[in-house]
Amino acid sequence: MIKELYFELSEFQARLGAVKREMARRGIDVLLLSEPPNQNYLTGYNAYSFYTPQMIIVTLDRNEPIWVGRLMDRVSAVMTTYLADENILAYPETHVHSPVLSAYDIMADIVKEVGGEKARIGVEMGGYYYPARAHADFLRALPYAEFVDADLLVGWIRLKKSPAEVDIMRDAGKIADAAMKRVIDTIEVGIRECDIAAAAYHQQVSGTAEFGGDYPCCPPDLCIGERSIAPHATWTDDRVPGSTVVNLELSGCRHRYQVNLARTVVVGTISPAFRALSDIAVEALNAGLDAIRPGRTCSDVFDAFQRTLSCHGIEKDSRIGYPTGIAFPPAVGERTASIRRGDRTILEPGMVFHMMPGLWLGNAGITITQSFAVTDNGFEPLTETPRELFFK
Amino acid sequence: MIKELYFELSEFQARLGAVKREMARRGIDVLLLSEPPNQNYLTGYNAYSFYTPQMIIVTLDRNEPIWVGRLMDRVSAVMTTYLADENILAYPETHVHSPVLSAYDIMADIVKEVGGEKARIGVEMGGYYYPARAHADFLRALPYAEFVDADLLVGWIRLKKSPAEVDIMRDAGKIADAAMKRVIDTIEVGIRECDIAAAAYHQQVSGTAEFGGDYPCCPPDLCIGERSIAPHATWTDDRVPGSTVVNLELSGCRHRYQVNLARTVVVGTISPAFRALSDIAVEALNAGLDAIRPGRTCSDVFDAFQRTLSCHGIEKDSRIGYPTGIAFPPAVGERTASIRRGDRTILEPGMVFHMMPGLWLGNAGITITQSFAVTDNGFEPLTETPRELFFK
Repeated sequence: MIKELYFELSEFQARLGAVKREMARRGIDVLLLSEPPNQNYLTGYNAYSFYTPQMIIVTLDRNEPIWVGRLMDRVSAVMTTYLADENILAYPETHVHSPVLSAYDIMADIVKEVGGEKARIGVEMGGYYYPARAHADFLRALPYAEFVDADLLVGWIRLKKSPAEVDIMRDAGKIADAAMKRVIDTIEVGIRECDIAAAAYHQQVSGTAEFGGDYPCCPPDLCIGERSIAPHATWTDDRVPGSTVVNLELSGCRHRYQVNLARTVVVGTISPAFRALSDIAVEALNAGLDAIRPGRTCSDVFDAFQRTLSCHGIEKDSRIGYPTGIAFPPAVGERTASIRRGDRTILEPGMVFHMMPGLWLGNAGITITQSFAVTDNGFEPLTETPRELFFK
Repeated sequence: MIKELYFELSEFQARLGAVKREMARRGIDVLLLSEPPNQNYLTGYNAYSFYTPQMIIVTLDRNEPIWVGRLMDRVSAVMTTYLADENILAYPETHVHSPVLSAYDIMADIVKEVGGEKARIGVEMGGYYYPARAHADFLRALPYAEFVDADLLVGWIRLKKSPAEVDIMRDAGKIADAAMKRVIDTIEVGIRECDIAAAAYHQQVSGTAEFGGDYPCCPPDLCIGERSIAPHATWTDDRVPGSTVVNLELSGCRHRYQVNLARTVVVGTISPAFRALSDIAVEALNAGLDAIRPGRTCSDVFDAFQRTLSCHGIEKDSRIGYPTGIAFPPAVGERTASIRRGDRTILEPGMVFHMMPGLWLGNAGITITQSFAVTDNGFEPLTETPRELFFK
């Protein structure tokens, strides 16, 4: 059978080793990973199957994790993970969206077998794929176990990317650049918003001539005209008017690693005030980027950004960046560090962030952003689209 | 400010009335709806913001639900819901992906204000957007309240669509047909899989000449050659070989209502056995469709399908269909009824399902499916793509 693996076995083993060390430090015997990016990180698993219960089980004493999922997705685990066949387990189709049968009961039996009745079990309490019912079912099925919150245990390890991961993200960045170019080329007076979004998707998935793109973990944000003040709106059937502002955030995704990119495109003319604000936005973004050094904190980077804004009398209270990497729906942000005031995360080479400050002038917003990897002495931009306002 | 509302106020009021009646029947004072489709159903809310905590609060004694979400998304609630301004509440940006602050604490304060300390509170335990931590935070913040599982309370009401909803789903079906035609036209020997997926996405989002498409809630499943046995794989950079089988499931989405469609496309030649199996697949699918009548059960429909399969010595154990409607990531399936043996859900006019039996012959699968609405005396197909094997 075909095998789709994009990392050396040694890299998977190094990841598993780091996770086990952290488990041991926290006294966790069994780690239940429900987050798809963590499942992908530790095993390579990749299929759009995480909308039914699916878990990776890590124990301190086993050489490999165990994958447990829906029976019809077992073949995807065989194809996309390095796991031995005996570590790929499944629950039957009867347990899918059943009002009476719980797949978590079957998972609990496996936990008992590999960790005993009284294991100390880490679960991802704040994850997207660990619903309240999963936890309730586990508490009922494993009454003698002790549960601890291990949310972001793997996330903090994922924050620092390996050279092989950064390599893939460079390709993802090239896809994001190609998609942004395609969209800027596509925007014109009279085109429907949906046709702009369609062009974005087409290029995101088609990728480049050298390599294709994966599905993005979220749709492009395409906010035009009055809707540009709504940061997470999508698109309508409306046609682009003769004079407006288009805010677009999109991404490139390669082997599930995602790099984001946002730009503001002006159609027609803009006010001098908007032009001036966009200059400030770029100046502050560049000041933030220039402050990136291993050893500095996320808060230091925010401060450098804010200092520039303050010179122009502007205060920003929301965060201006988040780490990205392996991305599955619903979101690319890794939920660990944030580039914001007070975040004491120390930058290390290999960390990847999307710095995305948004500035607003009345009803119009400016989003000019930069994804980057921290290097030994600064940052490497992962996209090459110029940091400036675009005009059509 | 612009308003994007796709239903009459009276329809939203009827939906809310149905939900309140069910709340009263179950003795629920306050209903916390974390599922994005339920939020959209009751208020119209639509933005890609559900990856941070977001809730609709329904109480028996208030005329409107309350929306609570992230501050920067408040404007989307103003733009896309019918709610009065005082019923649109927000938590500050400091609470987004914070290691110390919980947005659920702010929501709990609102619950206390509208429902008191001792309310009986319904929560969606099995939903995709009610993580274990949300429940733990609410239990801590509302120690005198009683929590009950209200998962699918709204889902069962949503199962039966109104005429206005079915109207929108007809348009979604037209988008699905256009996307399937585009893909079949695109498939050729030597084309990269990612370029086929890109064409699908482009048409799904561009829609038709009359109206555009929304983002699909999940990527197309595009399973080619040996990977066609993995039902939820996506695509690679590989080129389509001279002879292979392509299994594709995609969708059309309009105003967040999604209609799915899957077909098998043969490139080159196939074995007589595969051809014969595809005939059986269509015969059984049609037998299932012909069994649809108001008053019959999902199990009756499954039985009609299975009887045809049994004539050919084939047994199917997984479900062969699920309801669709409002769709947000990660999944379109409504998690209520299933077309499978033993499901006693009684069909009613307005219910919408995607009937999607998959059959397998060694390493190759056949997926020929049909989305339909139950009518007064049978079914209305929501897509027009012929139910047959396609050849390239």
